[in-house]
Amino acid sequence: MIQTDICIIGAGPVGLFAVFEAGLLKMRCHVIDALPKVGGQLTEIYPKKPIYDIPGYPMVLAEDLIKNLMDQIEPFKPTFTLGERVEKFYKEDDGVFHLRTSAGTDIICRVVVIAGGLGCFEPRKPEIPQLEEYEGKGVNYMILNPETYRNKKVVLAGGGDSALDWTIFLADIASELTLVHRNESFRGAPDSVEKVMELAKENKIRLLLKSNINAISGNGKLTGVSISDHNKSIQTIETDYLIPLFGLSPKLGPLENWGLNLDKSAIAVDTFDYSTTIPGVYAIGDINTYPGKLKLILCGFHEAALMAQSAYKIVFPNQKFSLKYTTVNGIQSF
Amino acid sequence: MIQTDICIIGAGPVGLFAVFEAGLLKMRCHVIDALPKVGGQLTEIYPKKPIYDIPGYPMVLAEDLIKNLMDQIEPFKPTFTLGERVEKFYKEDDGVFHLRTSAGTDIICRVVVIAGGLGCFEPRKPEIPQLEEYEGKGVNYMILNPETYRNKKVVLAGGGDSALDWTIFLADIASELTLVHRNESFRGAPDSVEKVMELAKENKIRLLLKSNINAISGNGKLTGVSISDHNKSIQTIETDYLIPLFGLSPKLGPLENWGLNLDKSAIAVDTFDYSTTIPGVYAIGDINTYPGKLKLILCGFHEAALMAQSAYKIVFPNQKFSLKYTTVNGIQSF
Ligand SMILES: Cc1cc2nc3c(=O)[nH]c(=O)nc-3n(C[C@H](O)[C@H](O)[C@H](O)COP(=O)(O)OP(=O)(O)OC[C@H]3O[C@@H](n4cnc5c(N)ncnc54)[C@H](O)[C@@H]3O)c2cc1C
Ligand SMILES: Cc1cc2nc3c(=O)[nH]c(=O)nc-3n(C[C@H](O)[C@H](O)[C@H](O)COP(=O)(O)OP(=O)(O)OC[C@H]3O[C@@H](n4cnc5c(N)ncnc54)[C@H](O)[C@@H]3O)c2cc1C
Repeated sequence: MIQTDICIIGAGPVGLFAVFEAGLLKMRCHVIDALPKVGGQLTEIYPKKPIYDIPGYPMVLAEDLIKNLMDQIEPFKPTFTLGERVEKFYKEDDGVFHLRTSAGTDIICRVVVIAGGLGCFEPRKPEIPQLEEYEGKGVNYMILNPETYRNKKVVLAGGGDSALDWTIFLADIASELTLVHRNESFRGAPDSVEKVMELAKENKIRLLLKSNINAISGNGKLTGVSISDHNKSIQTIETDYLIPLFGLSPKLGPLENWGLNLDKSAIAVDTFDYSTTIPGVYAIGDINTYPGKLKLILCGFHEAALMAQSAYKIVFPNQKFSLKYTTVNGIQSF
Repeated sequence: MIQTDICIIGAGPVGLFAVFEAGLLKMRCHVIDALPKVGGQLTEIYPKKPIYDIPGYPMVLAEDLIKNLMDQIEPFKPTFTLGERVEKFYKEDDGVFHLRTSAGTDIICRVVVIAGGLGCFEPRKPEIPQLEEYEGKGVNYMILNPETYRNKKVVLAGGGDSALDWTIFLADIASELTLVHRNESFRGAPDSVEKVMELAKENKIRLLLKSNINAISGNGKLTGVSISDHNKSIQTIETDYLIPLFGLSPKLGPLENWGLNLDKSAIAVDTFDYSTTIPGVYAIGDINTYPGKLKLILCGFHEAALMAQSAYKIVFPNQKFSLKYTTVNGIQSF
C-alpha cells in the first residue's frame, strides 16, 4: 500500500512536470505508468526525433527532454510504479482516493492527477489462433524486464525499431533468439537494421524474413510456434517465449468508466485549475479538453502549474499560499 | 512605416516566444520594446539569476533563457524596434491597426499582441531641480547607444549593477567619466565593484562616494552638475551628459488608455485564445489576467501558443488550419 499526497497517472512529459510543480508546493507524488519506462509518447513513439517547440530549446530530442525533466524533478524524490495500469478508482467517504493497478498495487492519496495522454498504449496483437490463451504464459507484448529471458528460447516478431532494438539487446541474453518479420526490409533505423543483419550472418540470431507466425502450441505454457514463409512452407520452432512487437496503440481504457465528463475520449476540464467534475481529480496534458485546447507539450506544462495551485488547497487545507519565484526561493528539495 | 502581420508590444520572454508560435503558422512579427535590449524583466532585473521552473531546464540563467529564445525565433526573422515605447493605437475601419511609438515610428499590422509584462520600465528619477527640463538635452536615464558618449564628458549617478557596468563600459569611450554614488559601498556584483575601484585608482574615472548631485546647470543644453559630499562641501563639474541610473520601475503607461478591459492594471482576457475585448488585440504574459492566472514565464508560453491559433484566422481568413507537430513538420523558416 503506497500513501502519497498526489497520485499522477501517466509518466509522460506532463505527468513528470506535474511532480515539479507539486514539489515546489511541498506535495509528494507517486507516478504510475502502464509502460515500463517514463516519457509517454516521447519515449514510446519518437525518442530520437527532434522537437522544436519546447520554449527555450531551439531543438531538443524527445528522449533528452524526458531526461531533463527527470533531472528537474529529482529533488522532489517522486516514487514510481511502472509497467502497471491503473484499473480501479474509488473515492472514500473522507475524501481520500484509493487506486489499484493491473498488478494489484494499491495507492492511497488526496489528489488524483490524470496525465494519461492518449490513454494506455495497448499492444497491437497479431491474428494467431489461441494467442490470448497464452498471454502471460509465454506470450508477452512488452519487455518489462529483459532478465526474464536470460538463457531462454525467445521468438520476437515485428519489423520496426522496437523489434530491431530488442533483437540486438536480447541476442546476448537469450539462449536462442529468432526474429520473424513478414517483409524483406525493415522500417527501423538503418544502423539497427545493419546490426541485426550482422547478428544473423554471425549466426547469433535466427532471422526469418517474409515469414509469418501462423500457430502456437503448448500445454498451459507456450512450447512452440509454427512459422510459414512466402512459399507456404512451414517450420516449427521450440520456444519458451513469443514476443510480438507490432507497436502500441493508445486506448483510454479503464478511465472511461470512472464517471468523468468525457468529450470524444478526452476529459473535459475547467481551465481555472484543470479540475474534472470530481473534486480532487484533475486532468492535464493530451488527455484533457477545453475550449481552445492544443495537444502540445508546452500547454500541458502550464496546466500542471495551475493544477498544483488548486491541489495545494486540498492537500494543505489550512495553509495560506503565496506564489514565490524559483529564482528568489530556489528549490527546496525533500 | 513598418508593415507586418503581427505587432508584438514587449520583447520579454513571452513576446519573444510569440514570434515562434506565430512563425510556425507563417505569420511575420515586428516586436517593439521601450527598453534598449530584449528580454523584459529577465534582462532588466535578474539577468544573472538562475530560474528553476522552466520545463526541461533544471536550471537556466535568465539571460541564457533569453538568448535561447532569440536563437529559437531566429528562423522566423522577426524585426525589432527597441528603445521606443508604443504610445498610440488606432484601429482603422478596414480592421488594420496603426501603432505609433514615442520616437514617431509607425507600424501597420493586422493583429496586436500586448506582451507588455508589468508595463514599461520607467526610470526612477532623482530629485534634482530642473532635471526634467534637461531630459534629452544632456540628461538621459537609459543608455541606448554608447557611441553617443564617445569623447564626451559624462557623469553617471547610482550604486547598482547598472551604474557599475556602464562605468566600466564607458571608461574607454567617454573623454572624462565621473561616477557619483551616495553611499560608500555598492549594491552590485563584487567583481564589478572591484573593477570600478581599480579604474578609480588608475585615474581612468573620477569616483565620488558619499556624494549627491544637488543641482544642474546649462543654457538649453546641460553644461555642468554640482555635487555635494557628506561634509556638505560642493564642487561643480563640467559635463556634456548626466545619466542617473537609479533603476527602473514598471508603469502600464499608455496602454491604460486604449479602451481595454482592465482589472488591477492587468488586461482581462478570454482563456480560449487570450483575446482582449478588442477583436484582433491579444494580451499574453504578465500583463493579462484571468481566473487562475499565475505570473509565470511558462504560463505565458502556453498563452502565446493559443493566441497564435486565433490570430491565424485573422491574418489568413480564408485558409484552413490544422495543427502539425514540429517533430513531423520541422521549422519552415522565412
Ligand atoms: C510523432 C509525434 C510527434 C510529436 N511532436 C510534438 C511536438 O513537436 N511538440 C509537441 O508539443 N508535441 C508533440 N507531440 C505530442 C506530444 O507527444 C504530446 O502532447 C505529449 O506526449 C503529451 O504528454 P502527456 O504527458 O499528456 O501524455 P503522454 O505522453 O501520452 O503520456 C501519457 C502516459 O500515461 C500512461 N497511461 C495512460 N492511462 C494509464 C493508466 N490507466 N494507467 C497507467 N498509465 C496510464 C500512458 O502509458 C502514457 O505513458 C508529438 C506526438 C507524436 C506522436
Ligand atoms: C526577481 C524576479 C524573479 C523571477 N523569477 C521567476 C521564476 O523563477 N520563474 C518564473 O516563471 N517567473 C519569474 N519571474 C517573473 C517573470 O520574470 C515574468 O513572469 C516574465 O518576465 C513575464 O514575461 P513577459 O514577457 O510577460 O513580460 P516582461 O518580462 O515584463 O516584458 C515586458 C516588456 O514589455 C515592454 N513594454 C511594456 N509596455 C510597453 C510599451 N507601451 N511599449 C514598448 N514596450 C513596452 C517592457 O519594457 C518589457 O521589456 C520573476 C520576476 C522577478 C522580478
